[in-house]
Amino acid sequence: MTAVDFAVFVEELADAAGRTLLPFFRTSLGAEDKSRGGMFDPVTEADSAAEVAMRRMITQTFSSHGIIGEEFGNDRADAEYVWVLDPIDGTKSFISGIPTWGTLIGLLHNGVPIYGMMVQPFTREYFMGDGKAARWRGPGIDHAPIERKLKTRACASLAEVTLMTPSPLLYPPDELAAFRRVETAVRLSRYGYDCYAFAMLASGHVDCVMEAGVQAYDIAPLIPIIQGAGGIVTNWTGGSAAQGGNVVAAGDRRIHTAVLELLAG
Amino acid sequence: MTAVDFAVFVEELADAAGRTLLPFFRTSLGAEDKSRGGMFDPVTEADSAAEVAMRRMITQTFSSHGIIGEEFGNDRADAEYVWVLDPIDGTKSFISGIPTWGTLIGLLHNGVPIYGMMVQPFTREYFMGDGKAARWRGPGIDHAPIERKLKTRACASLAEVTLMTPSPLLYPPDELAAFRRVETAVRLSRYGYDCYAFAMLASGHVDCVMEAGVQAYDIAPLIPIIQGAGGIVTNWTGGSAAQGGNVVAAGDRRIHTAVLELLAG
Repeated sequence: MTAVDFAVFVEELADAAGRTLLPFFRTSLGAEDKSRGGMFDPVTEADSAAEVAMRRMITQTFSSHGIIGEEFGNDRADAEYVWVLDPIDGTKSFISGIPTWGTLIGLLHNGVPIYGMMVQPFTREYFMGDGKAARWRGPGIDHAPIERKLKTRACASLAEVTLMTPSPLLYPPDELAAFRRVETAVRLSRYGYDCYAFAMLASGHVDCVMEAGVQAYDIAPLIPIIQGAGGIVTNWTGGSAAQGGNVVAAGDRRIHTAVLELLAG
Repeated sequence: MTAVDFAVFVEELADAAGRTLLPFFRTSLGAEDKSRGGMFDPVTEADSAAEVAMRRMITQTFSSHGIIGEEFGNDRADAEYVWVLDPIDGTKSFISGIPTWGTLIGLLHNGVPIYGMMVQPFTREYFMGDGKAARWRGPGIDHAPIERKLKTRACASLAEVTLMTPSPLLYPPDELAAFRRVETAVRLSRYGYDCYAFAMLASGHVDCVMEAGVQAYDIAPLIPIIQGAGGIVTNWTGGSAAQGGNVVAAGDRRIHTAVLELLAG
């Protein structure tokens, strides 16, 4: 099986997730409506429903494959092929109505991410990669769908870097100190985006993205997109990011090297 | 002249701005491409071109009106009717490829904001209000445009608040200390959004938005949207926010009162 074989299938998964999620996005119901006593949490409902839909499609199509999902845990996680699913990456954006959350779908072969997609159903954007190449499909200037190759941009020094991280409030103290060493060295530090930050790195608009304490399903689907666009993504000591933990992605290898040095202290 | 008279005209302005801006969004050219030596800055180019287009339309249609714009300053700022234009609110999002910037268009009557629109051309979203009502038009689940009334949500106490601010890095020390007093009292604090945060407050997904040191064109166009949706927006001492400065918006008056008390120290 090659990446080409299941690229179409991954889009079908993404579209099934999108159809499930959009009705829950910007709903006035739920945990965010304090008058209802929190009986209905739209994020949990949406997350669960989308993962159920994707798990069913995977099981029906590839019965021997494993699945790692945010909501329903691991199923045959030691299979040759394992799917990694995060229906809503960026739940805080989702509940705040901000369209920078995404659905993440990844495929591991013997534990190595070989294909990944991030889809943003509201903006109708797909970011996908197989580690060798990456592409984007989304609305063009006339709003009709267009497709582009994704390529990270060159960046020679930290003083030229645009850095993104979801929020400094999410870092434990030691990691925050390490993050601050990087932040004070860059040109622009921006907060507030989850998977969308990695997508913009792959698109060549951001130079470095850092996160602390991520789960495998938060990052594994993004790795083939970032690498396919020419970027590099590892944990903070230079090892594989596929299992999650503290991760750093850079569009240019020189920036990655410089950041790892600062993180080492 | 009533708000109804020029609602159509404001949309024409917004669409002219969008047509001008979108070709510059996510371009690989310009200041963000370090290999070109900064000869071409897509944000400045886009900002200027969009404001020129809007100024020309206003001058041709309402020759006696004044204009306050981010790029080209004040023109008859003491006229009875004055337009307030910010072609790209959220330039840092714009240069990072994140679709949470917006074009702001406001109309003042004797200095009071009486109509405002925020448009996000990439997501095809329009947020508009006249101080009495507010509405949103954007893509529905099937991506065809739909329209909804905007309404802020009820929120009884700070402990239930979702708070947004563009970035704590933008606050001077005294303002940062005051902001931190609020931040530590709320349930969720989120960074990273400019006008989009106020739009989500008007939409009922966010309870409070704070900013320090904003210009009149950053906030005046948003005031009729926030107020039209049932929210309240003032400066940090409870006065008018129309001239900019430090601003705080809340969807529920109880939250606004509680925040002003904390800001007073």
